[in-house]
Amino acid sequence: MRTLASELSSKAGQQVELSGWIHRVRELGGISFVVLRDRSGTVQLVYDGKVEYTPESVITVRGTVQANEKAPGGYELQVAETELLAPAEPDLPIAVNQDPEKIGIEAILDNRIISLRNPKVLDIFRLQSSILQHFGEYMRSREFTEIKSSKLIGTGTEGGTGLFAVEYFDSKVYLAQSPQFYKQAMIASGLERVFEIGAAYRAEKHDTPRHLNEYVSLDVEMAFIEDENDLMDLELGILQHIFEGVARDHRRILEEWGQTLPSAEQLEATPRITHDDAKQLASERLGKRLFEINPEAERAICDWAAEEHAVEAAFVYGFPRKKRPFYTYPDGQKTKSFDLLFRGLEITTGGKRINEYAMLLETLPKFKLTEEGLGDYCTIFRYGCPPHGGFAIGLERLTQKILGLQNVKEASLFPRDRRRVRP
Amino acid sequence: MRTLASELSSKAGQQVELSGWIHRVRELGGISFVVLRDRSGTVQLVYDGKVEYTPESVITVRGTVQANEKAPGGYELQVAETELLAPAEPDLPIAVNQDPEKIGIEAILDNRIISLRNPKVLDIFRLQSSILQHFGEYMRSREFTEIKSSKLIGTGTEGGTGLFAVEYFDSKVYLAQSPQFYKQAMIASGLERVFEIGAAYRAEKHDTPRHLNEYVSLDVEMAFIEDENDLMDLELGILQHIFEGVARDHRRILEEWGQTLPSAEQLEATPRITHDDAKQLASERLGKRLFEINPEAERAICDWAAEEHAVEAAFVYGFPRKKRPFYTYPDGQKTKSFDLLFRGLEITTGGKRINEYAMLLETLPKFKLTEEGLGDYCTIFRYGCPPHGGFAIGLERLTQKILGLQNVKEASLFPRDRRRVRP
Repeated sequence: MRTLASELSSKAGQQVELSGWIHRVRELGGISFVVLRDRSGTVQLVYDGKVEYTPESVITVRGTVQANEKAPGGYELQVAETELLAPAEPDLPIAVNQDPEKIGIEAILDNRIISLRNPKVLDIFRLQSSILQHFGEYMRSREFTEIKSSKLIGTGTEGGTGLFAVEYFDSKVYLAQSPQFYKQAMIASGLERVFEIGAAYRAEKHDTPRHLNEYVSLDVEMAFIEDENDLMDLELGILQHIFEGVARDHRRILEEWGQTLPSAEQLEATPRITHDDAKQLASERLGKRLFEINPEAERAICDWAAEEHAVEAAFVYGFPRKKRPFYTYPDGQKTKSFDLLFRGLEITTGGKRINEYAMLLETLPKFKLTEEGLGDYCTIFRYGCPPHGGFAIGLERLTQKILGLQNVKEASLFPRDRRRVRP
Repeated sequence: MRTLASELSSKAGQQVELSGWIHRVRELGGISFVVLRDRSGTVQLVYDGKVEYTPESVITVRGTVQANEKAPGGYELQVAETELLAPAEPDLPIAVNQDPEKIGIEAILDNRIISLRNPKVLDIFRLQSSILQHFGEYMRSREFTEIKSSKLIGTGTEGGTGLFAVEYFDSKVYLAQSPQFYKQAMIASGLERVFEIGAAYRAEKHDTPRHLNEYVSLDVEMAFIEDENDLMDLELGILQHIFEGVARDHRRILEEWGQTLPSAEQLEATPRITHDDAKQLASERLGKRLFEINPEAERAICDWAAEEHAVEAAFVYGFPRKKRPFYTYPDGQKTKSFDLLFRGLEITTGGKRINEYAMLLETLPKFKLTEEGLGDYCTIFRYGCPPHGGFAIGLERLTQKILGLQNVKEASLFPRDRRRVRP
């Protein structure tokens, strides 16, 4: 019967069996102190004499639990018996038991199979799992149905550029940039409220700390909304639930990464400003005239929100028509769309969509699109589709900003960029 | 303030507002009865005189709730005011308000955008959402961490055949057949217990009622197991939790499709038989000598389990080495692997994996593989990987068998097969 490292304090004086990885070995005055790592944490093992196991070897040990004030956690195991389950070769390319900041991101990603063993690196993905849990929980509590749509599409609703082509038997298809088409189809089907957690692909050549060519999109779509404010309200509810859940589940990880999360009240105060005002505000703060909301402006707007509204987040709404996809609901020369900026980074794009067939047909030529060219898309609207809208949250960007990571690639288990297709 | 169809019975005598789709229109003696459909169900609207709206048009109506024994559900809405939100064209290619069995699977899939409006068809995906929920819930309750791995891989761990190629900038990558490589990497990382819900791709040319070229895989991997029996125990726990949850959430859907689910006790009795015994048993039942466990044999084995063990499920274990991938843990000429057959169909393949580096290096040449050819795979084992194993449940196959669907494609929102890449 296996005991976990985290359970040791309740077993003082008992014989127990532990299994895990050799995290660190230290010899002192004829005694060896071995830190053993398992999924619950670490524990100190005490051996008489020298220990021959290499770091990262997997062992099972049996012995007696002893209280020891000097041991991390206050308890240690006096080892009677060790079984070597899987020896590790001694040529580890990077250290697993050091602060990952000393290693550098390129080495961390190049040696991903090994760097994920670093507890602080692995904690990023423990926390990410918690984001997924609380996102799904909240959506279900609001009567949203989870869908799984195809990632292999004939044409792109976001326009044909930036798509990866797939050789599909004798034809060519593309990897979906978003489940936009399918979310809208499910709105019209009668589900009314849907969410999807799935991969999204962008064949963009940027290699920046903000971009991934493959990412996980937390997608939401809701029918019978009035306007984009309903969507911003919904997103605040989602983020409040995720932040509360993550803070409850992973206080240790947040502390370790030196982060705290906005409270529900702070999030509630997130300002909503127009695209024009946001551009103006960022221009003033940066002392130069901006023609678009670039990454520098996103940071300036969040700084302003932190100062004026005590939250590092801002909704920007009312984007011009030409900056948004054809399906965005128009509002004169503007659109009923929004972005959410959080801690200096756009983590969400969303908006109300065109739901009326006649309006859609009128819009297509303005974007040089045709009904035929969009495949089955227009069928959704031909037969009655209610007013609706939605948005997508980038999972890796949200993870990055929760933990204060420098690069979004750190928040992807196996990131894909222009040069990186392994491991 | 919108009222849902399901809430009508608690609002007798009140003025309410409903929104939804026009499901059916019937005129009788100068009165029109309109069935309105929303995400919660249907409700009868009563109009004086003729109604001009086409089926599937989306409307908002206001009126008074009245008890009426003859109305479905016992209540109806006497309409005072109607707002047309989105008119539907009158040329619906297939009927939405009829039994889908009358339409036929080809028409259902060819007109997928429309057929999903059929309530009985849509219910398949309401139930599927519930499977996803209860799968994740159970895994987390057992301390499994949810992961999201890349679907773009350099080489296949399942061998190079059956992969779809992707044009990735100036190089070529492939769509992953399974997250096998990444699940094992996360075992070795120290997470010990991981699950993933993600797309899997098989470039196989079959076009059968059992196959999809893109499907959703519910993947599980667990460290520090003894043998494949631990995995079968785990899978029974998962299925018990899913079946209980689905039966609780969706009794109506199960009844509508004429299905019941095995109880926890019935599942517990699932027999575990060797591959040799299963072949022998199926041969006897079918009155012919079988050389492999083909679809006919899978049905015969489940029939036997239903008769002898009162459950339409059987674990088959001990597959020969040459029938399993190289990473399967050997057991003489057999392997520590298993399939789960449920209601005549294989819904899971799994097993213990090779975790020792030396054993892996010894195994590769037997499968004509090399350490270099497998890319980063062997790094997982070079540095200490505990004993482990796992399995994958096909989401669409599980949905199919829960509802008694004829074809697995009915359980995929937007199925992909050799000919079908739209909608």
